[in-house]
This record gives sequence, structure tokens and C-alpha cells, in this order.
Amino acid sequence: MSDEDYMKEAIREAEQALREGEVPIGGVVVCNGRIIAKAHNLTETLTDPTAHAEMQLIGMAAEQIGGKYLDKCTLYVTVEPCPMCAAALSWAQIGKIVYGADDPKRGYSLFSPSLLHPKTIVSKGVMQEKCGSIVSDFFKNKRR
Amino acid sequence: MSDEDYMKEAIREAEQALREGEVPIGGVVVCNGRIIAKAHNLTETLTDPTAHAEMQLIGMAAEQIGGKYLDKCTLYVTVEPCPMCAAALSWAQIGKIVYGADDPKRGYSLFSPSLLHPKTIVSKGVMQEKCGSIVSDFFKNKRR
Repeated sequence: MSDEDYMKEAIREAEQALREGEVPIGGVVVCNGRIIAKAHNLTETLTDPTAHAEMQLIGMAAEQIGGKYLDKCTLYVTVEPCPMCAAALSWAQIGKIVYGADDPKRGYSLFSPSLLHPKTIVSKGVMQEKCGSIVSDFFKNKRR
Repeated sequence: MSDEDYMKEAIREAEQALREGEVPIGGVVVCNGRIIAKAHNLTETLTDPTAHAEMQLIGMAAEQIGGKYLDKCTLYVTVEPCPMCAAALSWAQIGKIVYGADDPKRGYSLFSPSLLHPKTIVSKGVMQEKCGSIVSDFFKNKRR
């Protein structure tokens, strides 16, 4: 499977979030070519402002692996992680992050020094238009 | 109750963490003078690198309040929050943070722009020696 294939799974999660009235961001964690966790934003459902897709994915993946460190895993997520999620991914020592759309307002890359683990590889822009439009359409509809 | 009284409760949580073999950091959330949540670090027990005291406290307090925003609440925590927890506290719009010891290696205050919500008030240094020595003694013993 290619990055696009995995990102399509992340987008499916984002679309599920949309149906549930959640901010439509989704992701998957891949380890040895296998998807070991899928999740989407659940802040409204769980009444928990920290229930971002990535936070749930870290817990789910760590449970699957049976250890705290995800250095052999890749996270695919539709939108650039926020600072909370980036720092959480640093604690998890995630091997690689692949994200779709940039978040120029709240993205982790706005902060310095870097919030990520020094060994984490980052790749961005995978299906970015689709990933970004799901979120921007959601907020446009909300403001209507 | 004074800041010291609430911090003593946070220290009790840190001491409980110590007994469980966890990094000894603890905290409480206070709302209208009442403690509505108590927690300590549980990263080992839960095999989850994000299971810091603050992350659990946000979820517990939000559940108690029945809403995502903790703007009427004060967090007491023994050590300066890490970037993940600071950004999580920003999402929760926490009213006030009172912490004991600084964390000069991984504290949120090392990052810019600020990871906290602009309205959050911060007070530090409450029982800082006691709060700090619990953690430094823990790591000294670990390295032995």
C-alpha cells in the first residue's frame, strides 16, 4: 500500500467524524505495513478537549504493540497535528508522521524549538486538497 | 483552603505514583473551592506515554463539569507541565495553573509562542522544593 492508500483510510475516518458532528480529522497508525489503529476526533462525543484523533491513536497503537514507544510506526493524519498532539507523538517517539493539509493557525510547526522527537521523520502534502477541504467545508457550514 | 493546602493534595498524588513505580507527578483540579479531580502519572500502568497527570485531570474535570471548558477551574500540579499538557490545558481553556517545581529540561515555558491559552493565569513555586525533590530523588534512585 502507498502513502495515498493509507491516507484514504485516514480520510475515511475524517468522514466518519463528520457524520458524528465532530471536527473532521482522522488518522491511522501503520506498523510493518499493517494498519494497527484507526481513529477520528471525538472531542464532542467524549466531552474531552484532548480527544484528538492522534491522542487516541497513540493509546490504541501502544496497546496493540504492548509498549509505550512507536518508533517503528508511521502515523497518517489528514491535518497537521496541533502542539498537544505533536508533543504527545514526541513522548511516543513516533517513527514517521505523514500528514495531508497544513494547519497555518494551530499547527505544531509554528512553535520552536521543535515539538517533535528529533528522530521523527515528517512527510506532508499527501492528498492535501481533499484533507483540507473536508475541514474547511465543515467550518464554513458551521458559520452559516 | 490555601494554594499550599491544594498542593499538598497534589503531592499526595505524586507520592501515590511513587508507590506504583510511576514518575512521581501529581495534581488536582479545583472548581469553586472544591477538588473535583485528583490524578497522578500513569504512563507505565496504562502503557501510554500520554497518560500524564494533567491529561487525566482534564478528562476527569470535564466529565465532572459536563463541558469541555475548564475556564472556571484551577489546576494544581507538582511540576511544570510539559508541552503536550500545556497545549492540552490550552484546548481546555483552563482558568489558572499553579505549579510547584520548574522543569528546566522539558517544561512548556521553553517554547514559543506560548503554548497556553492567552487567558490562563500562571502561578509557580508553591512548595517547589518538596515538589521537585520527589521527582529528582526518583530519578537518582532509578540510575543507582
